[in-house]
Amino acid sequence: MPPLITVLTDFGTADAYVAAVKGVIHSMNPGVAIVDISHQVAPQGVHEAAFLLGSSYPFFPKGTVHLAVVDPGVGTSRRALLLVSPWASFVGPDNGIFSYVVLEALEALGKKGSIHQDGPAFQPILVPVPPGLQAYHLTEHRFWRHPVSNTFHARDIFGPVAAHLSTGVPPEEMGTPVESLTYLRIPLPHQQGAELEGCILHVDHFGNLITNIREEDLQGRTGEFRLAGQTLPGLRDNYQAGEGQLVALVGSNGWVEIALPGGSAAKLLGAGVGDPVRVAAQASRTS
Amino acid sequence: MPPLITVLTDFGTADAYVAAVKGVIHSMNPGVAIVDISHQVAPQGVHEAAFLLGSSYPFFPKGTVHLAVVDPGVGTSRRALLLVSPWASFVGPDNGIFSYVVLEALEALGKKGSIHQDGPAFQPILVPVPPGLQAYHLTEHRFWRHPVSNTFHARDIFGPVAAHLSTGVPPEEMGTPVESLTYLRIPLPHQQGAELEGCILHVDHFGNLITNIREEDLQGRTGEFRLAGQTLPGLRDNYQAGEGQLVALVGSNGWVEIALPGGSAAKLLGAGVGDPVRVAAQASRTS
Amino acid sequence: MPPLITVLTDFGTADAYVAAVKGVIHSMNPGVAIVDISHQVAPQGVHEAAFLLGSSYPFFPKGTVHLAVVDPGVGTSRRALLLVSPWASFVGPDNGIFSYVVLEALEALGKKGSIHQDGPAFQPILVPVPPGLQAYHLTEHRFWRHPVSNTFHARDIFGPVAAHLSTGVPPEEMGTPVESLTYLRIPLPHQQGAELEGCILHVDHFGNLITNIREEDLQGRTGEFRLAGQTLPGLRDNYQAGEGQLVALVGSNGWVEIALPGGSAAKLLGAGVGDPVRVAAQASRTS
Repeated sequence: MPPLITVLTDFGTADAYVAAVKGVIHSMNPGVAIVDISHQVAPQGVHEAAFLLGSSYPFFPKGTVHLAVVDPGVGTSRRALLLVSPWASFVGPDNGIFSYVVLEALEALGKKGSIHQDGPAFQPILVPVPPGLQAYHLTEHRFWRHPVSNTFHARDIFGPVAAHLSTGVPPEEMGTPVESLTYLRIPLPHQQGAELEGCILHVDHFGNLITNIREEDLQGRTGEFRLAGQTLPGLRDNYQAGEGQLVALVGSNGWVEIALPGGSAAKLLGAGVGDPVRVAAQASRTS
Repeated sequence: MPPLITVLTDFGTADAYVAAVKGVIHSMNPGVAIVDISHQVAPQGVHEAAFLLGSSYPFFPKGTVHLAVVDPGVGTSRRALLLVSPWASFVGPDNGIFSYVVLEALEALGKKGSIHQDGPAFQPILVPVPPGLQAYHLTEHRFWRHPVSNTFHARDIFGPVAAHLSTGVPPEEMGTPVESLTYLRIPLPHQQGAELEGCILHVDHFGNLITNIREEDLQGRTGEFRLAGQTLPGLRDNYQAGEGQLVALVGSNGWVEIALPGGSAAKLLGAGVGDPVRVAAQASRTS
Repeated sequence: MPPLITVLTDFGTADAYVAAVKGVIHSMNPGVAIVDISHQVAPQGVHEAAFLLGSSYPFFPKGTVHLAVVDPGVGTSRRALLLVSPWASFVGPDNGIFSYVVLEALEALGKKGSIHQDGPAFQPILVPVPPGLQAYHLTEHRFWRHPVSNTFHARDIFGPVAAHLSTGVPPEEMGTPVESLTYLRIPLPHQQGAELEGCILHVDHFGNLITNIREEDLQGRTGEFRLAGQTLPGLRDNYQAGEGQLVALVGSNGWVEIALPGGSAAKLLGAGVGDPVRVAAQASRTS
């Protein structure tokens, strides 16, 4: 496979910051293909970036290098990180931006619950690097661009490291192995009486509300969905619904989502990330 | 020519949906180049997407594969379509998104008027596939990504089909030939007394109002343009005009457009898609 | 190095204008890689485009062709220009869009002050082509796309010229050498009593205010920064600061910038391009 790098930032597309990163990458690996994931993450929206990365990296070819930089701590002592899975490599700050990569590795091992201690949702905590992944603290200056600015590590550290990885430099040459990394405690749905309680992880461009509930979490629940004071009938197969009618369906990444076909569920409900979503055990008689 | 795929959607660029489509395409054809047409089509703006596709595909190399997905009917019985012209291939839902490709094929045959029966502008109707084009209902699952979600056919059906086309798989292997396809009845300018009456097809980023009137439709008319209660002198050659002065000129795709140099004609006039534009037969004495 | 072209416009990304330019380029040089710098320059924002080009072109590989089209005078007598430096080529209208390339060439020669006569900041003036650069008036129609529209020279002239340059056509075949070009008089910081007075050149996506003051201009000044009625302590190393606290630091391109970590300095201060920024000679006792 020819080398491929993706780029995910909160830099926006109005300035030339993303272009500078790409220029540096092309300088170090002229033949590489670069694909944007998004640059419209809200400034400093680490969880949002983590979600977008987690929902797209599995669709890229094996061996793709993912550069993800939402980095409020740039220039401070936060570590620069390289995370390597059997499927892909990830380069960026150690601030939780790879949380969904970690979560999916734990899910694959059946250990999803292991890191979900009590504590606020999306709070950064330090967790062990899951088995099957390797993490490196980026310390090898020779793979960086010099001089290194204090405010633009995407251009001077992360981009160059991604470029060198895409040329075949082994990950272990880039820095020092580390045993733990930062994780934003992603809430898991949990039983609450007869109901399942989950929450909203992401609001997309269409105003669809993407929850942390997977189809398998429903365990045959056929009941109503409740959020923001509204009640929706059980899962539908597609977006077809009566005008102005909310639907719940399993979205393209396997998460249950709440949508308003032809409109924005987020606007209609005034709902956002972190808001609770409840699923009843079975359909009520009147629904 | 190396393979080239364009992508046109209403997905926006904030989420990772476009990236997932590109990841799948790169997985199936690693060497392909991908060019964005636009992802800022208004949600469910099928006509807007059709216009953008029609105004850009002629400028791409022969053999380019155009992936166009604005798809409110995703997951329903609307057909998935492949349209092949001597110049390019088009992949997307059968909802009218290829209307300008159809219109241009009919124009080239001198049959532009043939499908313009009475009826509301931009209404979807079923029309015969024009001579010279071939259309296929996409039915061959082996070219898709599996499992196929109900809500993201760009990633699971259209993108994979585009990728396989770009590797040289013949169109006829992708599905079943069909005789008709959906067309959004694009209004044509027509004689109204001594005047020509057209309408606005598109409002661009600058607020320019692009009409359905071509230079040849004017047939030597030198008169004023009238829209939204305003009167403009005849055609100009460029955007140079006095401050705050509207101009009519032949735009870069051959359509007459109304512009406000240094400002937005759309805002000034409060005009939008479908609004009428009238052209007088000749210049009045006072203009 | 494989050929690389960057594209910078005020076309926005909602329409298909940028795609048409890329289609034409791919038609003329199928193997070329194309990188966007920005398409969100404010309509007719020539200085803004000039700044973005100046702050990104040095990071692209040697020999990159930069296509920059913000062109309110399209279709008039303004010249179409090719500017060639030892590092890169630049194609676009002769309206000042290459001002920072000119400024940097003069800086490298130690002649930065030579063109800064009195006069309004950012005013277009004609200046000699700096030593080491060559400029050509694009006149050779055979490298263009025909017919040439009056309103879209990015597609019909500049894009084709960039494509041919990227295939190795020598610059001197593209047109006639010229001795002068348009420059937007970029203000330089100057001594004002004991203070240094500079101004804001650019406001970025994060609301950071990027000034025309370079670290070397400070000449050891350790004093406060004053703008928009606020006083900031001297230079910091990174964005870490107390909540709601403005910081001054040397940004990633060597300019001093004013930032509000976690917020927008531009919004907080109501400051914009051209506004003055003053630096005191040394720290006051109370700071």
